[in-house]
Amino acid sequence: MSFKYERKINYYETDKMGVVHHSNYIRYLEEARTAWLDVNKMPFEEMEEKGITIPVLGVKCNYKTHVTFGDTVIIIPHLKEYTGVRFTVCYDFIEKESKRVVLTGETKHCFTSKELRPVNMKKQAPMYHEKFEKLHEEYLKEKEKASNG
Amino acid sequence: MSFKYERKINYYETDKMGVVHHSNYIRYLEEARTAWLDVNKMPFEEMEEKGITIPVLGVKCNYKTHVTFGDTVIIIPHLKEYTGVRFTVCYDFIEKESKRVVLTGETKHCFTSKELRPVNMKKQAPMYHEKFEKLHEEYLKEKEKASNG
Amino acid sequence: MSFKYERKINYYETDKMGVVHHSNYIRYLEEARTAWLDVNKMPFEEMEEKGITIPVLGVKCNYKTHVTFGDTVIIIPHLKEYTGVRFTVCYDFIEKESKRVVLTGETKHCFTSKELRPVNMKKQAPMYHEKFEKLHEEYLKEKEKASNG
Amino acid sequence: MSFKYERKINYYETDKMGVVHHSNYIRYLEEARTAWLDVNKMPFEEMEEKGITIPVLGVKCNYKTHVTFGDTVIIIPHLKEYTGVRFTVCYDFIEKESKRVVLTGETKHCFTSKELRPVNMKKQAPMYHEKFEKLHEEYLKEKEKASNG
Repeated sequence: MSFKYERKINYYETDKMGVVHHSNYIRYLEEARTAWLDVNKMPFEEMEEKGITIPVLGVKCNYKTHVTFGDTVIIIPHLKEYTGVRFTVCYDFIEKESKRVVLTGETKHCFTSKELRPVNMKKQAPMYHEKFEKLHEEYLKEKEKASNG
Repeated sequence: MSFKYERKINYYETDKMGVVHHSNYIRYLEEARTAWLDVNKMPFEEMEEKGITIPVLGVKCNYKTHVTFGDTVIIIPHLKEYTGVRFTVCYDFIEKESKRVVLTGETKHCFTSKELRPVNMKKQAPMYHEKFEKLHEEYLKEKEKASNG
Repeated sequence: MSFKYERKINYYETDKMGVVHHSNYIRYLEEARTAWLDVNKMPFEEMEEKGITIPVLGVKCNYKTHVTFGDTVIIIPHLKEYTGVRFTVCYDFIEKESKRVVLTGETKHCFTSKELRPVNMKKQAPMYHEKFEKLHEEYLKEKEKASNG
Repeated sequence: MSFKYERKINYYETDKMGVVHHSNYIRYLEEARTAWLDVNKMPFEEMEEKGITIPVLGVKCNYKTHVTFGDTVIIIPHLKEYTGVRFTVCYDFIEKESKRVVLTGETKHCFTSKELRPVNMKKQAPMYHEKFEKLHEEYLKEKEKASNG
């Protein structure tokens, strides 16, 4: 029943090598992440209105297969780590038709105020905190299942 | 001795047709425009700090020649119209080596406060106003010279 | 029953003014255009495979309202002009919730071979030619209906 | 006397957080990398003409400080690893005025033919191979000096 983010590749996202430019995949991760937060009732816009921004601290990406205009990709984010102050999202990222893995990657984030001071979610946004904890538990369960499976 | 904005084409700005994607030229126009305002002592950042933003009202672009990674372009902005409230910039835009015209284009702008209310430069920023008037006069002179020449 | 292209605004498409950067709307027009060609059984990929590319000759855009992250836009392309060698697409472009017009705009195109020589669709791709003619007729009918009120 | 890539931040590269969008730094790394290959007489265009493309296999980026429109960044690439088939570039990346570190990052690459088959540089492009070896030696020397210094 997990969330899937699906999107077509746009022409302007390719480069003269004929495939998606590697920087654009980082943008697709953001798209998937914001759609996933939406579905989990933590819309980014709502968080920004409450004064919480979520900067990206780090990005890691290993490219496995090229995709290009005409292809559709499916991205599934997972909450790999969550401390109440920081979190890490990892991603399943496949080409829809071939099911081939496009990349493996993760992004690291923290919560800050508009003035870029750290925000402790447990104290300052307990409702979101609970949801993040739940998402992280789901990730751990899935991982266990996979390793048993 | 007019201002010239020169820049190399980046790989990520090409698309699978092997040439610069048409949306990117619009970005090059902005680059040239902000560099030109800098040189004319009206840096965009300074204006934003004073509460003046310069939204783009319109864009017109006719593409003549493709450029691609490895090419260098030269862009020269001209202040075609200026009313104190709105202005139009037109651009010379050539490929450096071949001197071929890459595009003809213009962008329309206005001045607004941060709340997006119109700003009358003559009243609210007379120093900038004078500079804009001077730039427009230069354009008219050059145009006259060209039509006589 | 006309085709509608709907898409959410991505965070990375905004700029420090807090709204979508004006160059990105040009990209949305391309997205809508390719989706519209798909629906009309003239997928861009298929045309490229047959050796027909569709460069953009010109772009015109008048920006009316800002949209930003969290908004959804709806774009409806119309085949305003078609000569068998060149065509012009104009667009309805509104914000979904408010129904406000985001921009009015049009893009001009031609058909070329991979070597960028002009292609005459009537001769070289009659099946596509017929479809383009039909799309243009639809535009003319809709326009007439609109002007008759 | 090492190579420095310097560039101003463009307005369109910022997002509504008011700073450069994290995906754009990946593009700046590419800009620095291609300029650095140019200076070292291995222009990317020339390599592409000889049928060698250099796909990106992976990207790692840890963001330390935000930069925004008006700032200038300086990027210095180093050839951290080179095997004749693959290589890793790491980067010094600072804001020019404050000298603050903007990010630490590296990119992994390989050499392929146009058909995306692996290319062994030692065999197929010995002149480039020597240059890459020299660049890697320089990196090792600098590193040693730094650890002794």
